Amino acid sequence: MTTPAHPSDHTPSPAERPASSPLGVAAIGYAFMGKAHSNAWRNVASFFDVPAFEQKVLVGRDAAQVAEAAAKYGWAESATDWRSVLERDDIHIVDICAPGWMHAEIATAALAAGKHVLVEKPLANTIAEAEAMTAAAITARAQGVQSMIGFNYRRVPALALARELIAEGRLGTVRHVRAAYLQDWLSDAEAPMTWRLRKETAGSGALGDIASHAIDQVLFLLGDAVTEVSGRLHTFVDRRPGADGLEDVTVDDAAWATLTLASGAIASVEVSRMATGQKNSLKLEIYGDKGTILFDLEALNELGFLDATVPVREQGFRRILVNEPEHPYLEAWWPQGHIIGWEHTFTHQIRDFLTAVAAGEAPSPSFEEGLNVQHILAAVEESAAAKSSLIQLHANPIEGA
Amino acid sequence: MTTPAHPSDHTPSPAERPASSPLGVAAIGYAFMGKAHSNAWRNVASFFDVPAFEQKVLVGRDAAQVAEAAAKYGWAESATDWRSVLERDDIHIVDICAPGWMHAEIATAALAAGKHVLVEKPLANTIAEAEAMTAAAITARAQGVQSMIGFNYRRVPALALARELIAEGRLGTVRHVRAAYLQDWLSDAEAPMTWRLRKETAGSGALGDIASHAIDQVLFLLGDAVTEVSGRLHTFVDRRPGADGLEDVTVDDAAWATLTLASGAIASVEVSRMATGQKNSLKLEIYGDKGTILFDLEALNELGFLDATVPVREQGFRRILVNEPEHPYLEAWWPQGHIIGWEHTFTHQIRDFLTAVAAGEAPSPSFEEGLNVQHILAAVEESAAAKSSLIQLHANPIEGA
Amino acid sequence: MTTPAHPSDHTPSPAERPASSPLGVAAIGYAFMGKAHSNAWRNVASFFDVPAFEQKVLVGRDAAQVAEAAAKYGWAESATDWRSVLERDDIHIVDICAPGWMHAEIATAALAAGKHVLVEKPLANTIAEAEAMTAAAITARAQGVQSMIGFNYRRVPALALARELIAEGRLGTVRHVRAAYLQDWLSDAEAPMTWRLRKETAGSGALGDIASHAIDQVLFLLGDAVTEVSGRLHTFVDRRPGADGLEDVTVDDAAWATLTLASGAIASVEVSRMATGQKNSLKLEIYGDKGTILFDLEALNELGFLDATVPVREQGFRRILVNEPEHPYLEAWWPQGHIIGWEHTFTHQIRDFLTAVAAGEAPSPSFEEGLNVQHILAAVEESAAAKSSLIQLHANPIEGA
Amino acid sequence: MTTPAHPSDHTPSPAERPASSPLGVAAIGYAFMGKAHSNAWRNVASFFDVPAFEQKVLVGRDAAQVAEAAAKYGWAESATDWRSVLERDDIHIVDICAPGWMHAEIATAALAAGKHVLVEKPLANTIAEAEAMTAAAITARAQGVQSMIGFNYRRVPALALARELIAEGRLGTVRHVRAAYLQDWLSDAEAPMTWRLRKETAGSGALGDIASHAIDQVLFLLGDAVTEVSGRLHTFVDRRPGADGLEDVTVDDAAWATLTLASGAIASVEVSRMATGQKNSLKLEIYGDKGTILFDLEALNELGFLDATVPVREQGFRRILVNEPEHPYLEAWWPQGHIIGWEHTFTHQIRDFLTAVAAGEAPSPSFEEGLNVQHILAAVEESAAAKSSLIQLHANPIEGA
Repeated sequence: MTTPAHPSDHTPSPAERPASSPLGVAAIGYAFMGKAHSNAWRNVASFFDVPAFEQKVLVGRDAAQVAEAAAKYGWAESATDWRSVLERDDIHIVDICAPGWMHAEIATAALAAGKHVLVEKPLANTIAEAEAMTAAAITARAQGVQSMIGFNYRRVPALALARELIAEGRLGTVRHVRAAYLQDWLSDAEAPMTWRLRKETAGSGALGDIASHAIDQVLFLLGDAVTEVSGRLHTFVDRRPGADGLEDVTVDDAAWATLTLASGAIASVEVSRMATGQKNSLKLEIYGDKGTILFDLEALNELGFLDATVPVREQGFRRILVNEPEHPYLEAWWPQGHIIGWEHTFTHQIRDFLTAVAAGEAPSPSFEEGLNVQHILAAVEESAAAKSSLIQLHANPIEGA
Repeated sequence: MTTPAHPSDHTPSPAERPASSPLGVAAIGYAFMGKAHSNAWRNVASFFDVPAFEQKVLVGRDAAQVAEAAAKYGWAESATDWRSVLERDDIHIVDICAPGWMHAEIATAALAAGKHVLVEKPLANTIAEAEAMTAAAITARAQGVQSMIGFNYRRVPALALARELIAEGRLGTVRHVRAAYLQDWLSDAEAPMTWRLRKETAGSGALGDIASHAIDQVLFLLGDAVTEVSGRLHTFVDRRPGADGLEDVTVDDAAWATLTLASGAIASVEVSRMATGQKNSLKLEIYGDKGTILFDLEALNELGFLDATVPVREQGFRRILVNEPEHPYLEAWWPQGHIIGWEHTFTHQIRDFLTAVAAGEAPSPSFEEGLNVQHILAAVEESAAAKSSLIQLHANPIEGA
Repeated sequence: MTTPAHPSDHTPSPAERPASSPLGVAAIGYAFMGKAHSNAWRNVASFFDVPAFEQKVLVGRDAAQVAEAAAKYGWAESATDWRSVLERDDIHIVDICAPGWMHAEIATAALAAGKHVLVEKPLANTIAEAEAMTAAAITARAQGVQSMIGFNYRRVPALALARELIAEGRLGTVRHVRAAYLQDWLSDAEAPMTWRLRKETAGSGALGDIASHAIDQVLFLLGDAVTEVSGRLHTFVDRRPGADGLEDVTVDDAAWATLTLASGAIASVEVSRMATGQKNSLKLEIYGDKGTILFDLEALNELGFLDATVPVREQGFRRILVNEPEHPYLEAWWPQGHIIGWEHTFTHQIRDFLTAVAAGEAPSPSFEEGLNVQHILAAVEESAAAKSSLIQLHANPIEGA
Repeated sequence: MTTPAHPSDHTPSPAERPASSPLGVAAIGYAFMGKAHSNAWRNVASFFDVPAFEQKVLVGRDAAQVAEAAAKYGWAESATDWRSVLERDDIHIVDICAPGWMHAEIATAALAAGKHVLVEKPLANTIAEAEAMTAAAITARAQGVQSMIGFNYRRVPALALARELIAEGRLGTVRHVRAAYLQDWLSDAEAPMTWRLRKETAGSGALGDIASHAIDQVLFLLGDAVTEVSGRLHTFVDRRPGADGLEDVTVDDAAWATLTLASGAIASVEVSRMATGQKNSLKLEIYGDKGTILFDLEALNELGFLDATVPVREQGFRRILVNEPEHPYLEAWWPQGHIIGWEHTFTHQIRDFLTAVAAGEAPSPSFEEGLNVQHILAAVEESAAAKSSLIQLHANPIEGA
């Protein structure tokens, strides 16, 4: 891929727009993430009071397919050349749902063109790209051009509530964190080779794809920083059927890490694509000296909470059904107990992004936060590559007398 | 403590006993484990067909207290000198429930005296002691004197069932194992200092006490061996109130490890005494390519099982209530759905031990297996001490342009 | 309210429409149900292949409010007079989300005008109205004008799967059914009076509002018919604060019934608006001689299933996460484990309705089915009013000797 | 069977016993309940401080079998004639575990002989017998001879805690109670005929056997009284294979009832022996205006509790693991999280019975309470027999126009 333009080549400023006119939005990509983001754009204004905007154009490589997707997903037009879209005066926001290896080039160009940018996670496939994007974002922000990375699980109402409870001190001193993200779509050793299993296209395997979410949640929930990392990676099935026979899988199937946090807490992170029966299970356990939080993404409307300050006789893990008007984001939806789905996290993300952009404020999480996660992932890889912590054991240590 | 007698000093043989007369049993220790073992001895013959035996004598240091305990727990007599008990011809079995630092001395002496020995886990506080005990056990076994280590969770019916299912191939190739043992009795930073928090008396903290159980389960369930270990230890609260002010906690509060297994599977192990709200939660997750097993000791009558060979449409985690006559050990208890408790695992342990002893067979798990777990724990400590896998992270990696 | 036009006054036929042009849709009502239906219309074509249609007009009483709602919810126009909308040639479908007491008048007029009709449950507030609507629907259907009642929970994927499993015989002979619908929004005795608590506006209380859903599910899942009913109603809080002081609550807070089914099975139904902590919990338990189904609407992505034909040793309730492409409706949504919400049941409902209408087939459930549920509810009321089954007990039956 | 001796024939008084000597105990019956009671007698003094007692004699019909059972279960002797046992001066307590149709004769005789009596539930098979027993108990109590009925589930720690919470007002005004007792041992239509399925030996089916427990819990937990009953009974499989071909099942397989309580609360009760997959599931749900209690006997160490007085944002059902020293009965057992089993409820029952007897106080629940439950069961049968509440429905109510 081409080198991203250096951010200081140009002084960006927000695209001109009369204060009262709607924000024009372009989205790039119409696969899984493009579908999910489009759904959020199409619906956000039906539920939330958001600044006026228009779903202007959906961008993709295949003209016919992107035109069909645009029609289905609520976009006024489609286009195949993202560069020309960046030149349009009626586009103020670019939502990047293209694969990770394209993020840096598009994002830096969009920011340079004065477009506010939302980019899917992971920020980029390499640290170098992520650093370039972050530098571009910092430059642009100084000019009022905003940017954000799409860690959408920050907008799960139950997790937003968890963050509030922790920030209010309801867990006391947090010490022990357990984060796991378990899937099983590679459990079948005959599942075919894909771009996600090659290092050159995917960057890494479960690590970048799902450990990134788990690590971001640790940082988000605790408002803490990682100071030290130990990690391990493994590929359980190292050859898979490709178009022309077996091909090498060059990324990890599973990863394990422990993270030391600045506060003194320790977090374990464990992710796998081989956890048979676990479909999309991001499990979080936050243990403090005054309470505990539990969460599982497969039941995302629920939050487990134990308040250790009530008498021991009545302590227990509570299942809070996070569906009350009192809960984050929920006043917009349905009456209590009418649960929401995974896709709604994207709707909340667009709400927060639009609100910040219209207010001229920096939305969160920033590219710096995305880069920070990338550094942690890189440290896991570095630790894993060193293998320095592994102690060998030998069988039969005792001989009979 | 004194050095255990060298096992080759003496050729032990089972204490003389007419074939038809009952086995005489002595138990050493009457605290938590002594109470639990006594309960098992008192009840085992009411539920299972076991060889005839008699609860002869309970041994403890305090004459008055041990006499009271003996009366309460069903022992015919009490005694304060375990050495004299080993000299009695009417004692054929010695059940060691004394603290870990006493195991080696008593066990080697008992084996040398031709007594069959059951010893609580961990086998010993040091590798050297454990090796001496294991050598003694091997020598004794050759003479028909049996020995066993008390990993009682092997006798949880649900886990015995899990082992059967795995051995039958119901999980296919096991790849990913997650084992955690979470407690919270040290969650309060003001909880007082005890002998369990000093290295010289306890050997280690959560590692030896509860990671030993978790690791034994991994080995038991999979019938596998550990070849490589990476570990980490941490003490969250490093000073606690003692009799004369704050004292240093010299063992771990929590431990993390990954274990490479000979089969190629990888197991993570995570234990903590600071997991607020988790009371005695040994959680096991075994992921194979054909199925998955889940277990939690706090609901020990239940086994989670997912069979990935049924059509996807109807796959799901099953909660098997392990309370049917078809289940291990259950034919002896109550009708279906009338659940059993934690204590019953000891009853099953005594059943299996007595049956093997009477048959002249080696009961399982052996001291070798106990020593093997000790080696794994030692490797975790070694890896943790090296800290060689830790990668440091530095804040603020990006400066504004 | 005015008497609905007699259905035989007019011979309806589907509104003229060139085969290739889209179906024009009008929705009446923009409160809770109007919002939910609008959301479904706005999104159905983004996920499913459905016949072409256009969200033409949203109808409501307040001109300003309905205009705002139309803009928010994706309707091209708004209107305040539903009668004039029925006269429009470009409207082919009328979706009635107005309160129950308006259903009969609008539905019969719309059918008479040759419009396909979808009407929210309950079909009507009285049996007489429901019968008139059903007669109108039968007449219209003969002319190719379709109609359907909106029991949206039939489109919960887990319940659609449950029906499939039952129809395939996986439960064997179904005998015992337990259906409950528990909410708690009236648990607070100070909660204010509303139109839902007056018999003249609401018809009944928990009975019509939520027992209707529970009963429809029993019929839907089993494909069975009710032959006999016993019931009981109760109002726990019979006066509530109104605008001018306390007012009488004239509907039930809770209802209990047993239903004899034609197959010989017996279903219990229990509903309440006072079940503190239960937010929107429609619980279903279907017990057959070969298996069992469990469901709870608060976790609507999950289905409990026990297959009693597998060996007893491995029987247990499975939690099927109904989120696989193999499951009903799911191929349209997200990858496995990315759960959907309550609102999606309406999207599925519109999909099925549109598909049937375009194919010239009668969608299900029909008005006949809605009327059938009304008859069952009326029988519960009749049985409850009779109180003939109540046996009085007297205290202190035994005197001391 | 013979008519029980009229209680006024004789003035009982407690069997002579020097204050310091142990209470002599006889148990009658050694099947399921005899085994469970024996287990409690054998172990109670190992865990609780109880008055001194001795397991004197176990009584049964078959001399060889009862001798073997006595040896296994910890009884000093066995006997075959319960009448002669009642004549022994060294017997002070009679524990009746014989079948229900023998209760009245033995209990009245034992009370007349001045023996304290514990009798298994149900009190008797007929109201007449239960009344005679209760009259005898009242007479005896006046002389210091105690009696108790064995509703052992009152001694489940979680339910004892539930009662405490309710008595403290933690649920506020209780309105809605749901009680169900579900088993599946008759789910197989080929399961053979037994004495439990004949009215003359069993009295009733699921009603007396398990609805009695459910109803007793409603009364126990709420401290309330039943004023009005409506009920229904059904036999799903009315013929089963006997020794000589198919025989008629003359008791109910399932029962449904609603109970009006003196407080104004309403309880539903539903029991079944055909609930496939439910092994021994006594489920209780108690809904008050300030909170809710949930319980399931298959997980008897857990209590669900929702406190509706905490802010809505953090309300949720708690799972209290009832295994803390602060919980009823638990200080005697194991450290937190080491769960107990079903059998321990009997140990608690013996503890409470012995303590009351030694103190000269009336243990609870009394025969009056047992009789009260019998009256409620009889009212269910009466209501069910009347069938007066059943409303017939007719198919096809609407004809096409």
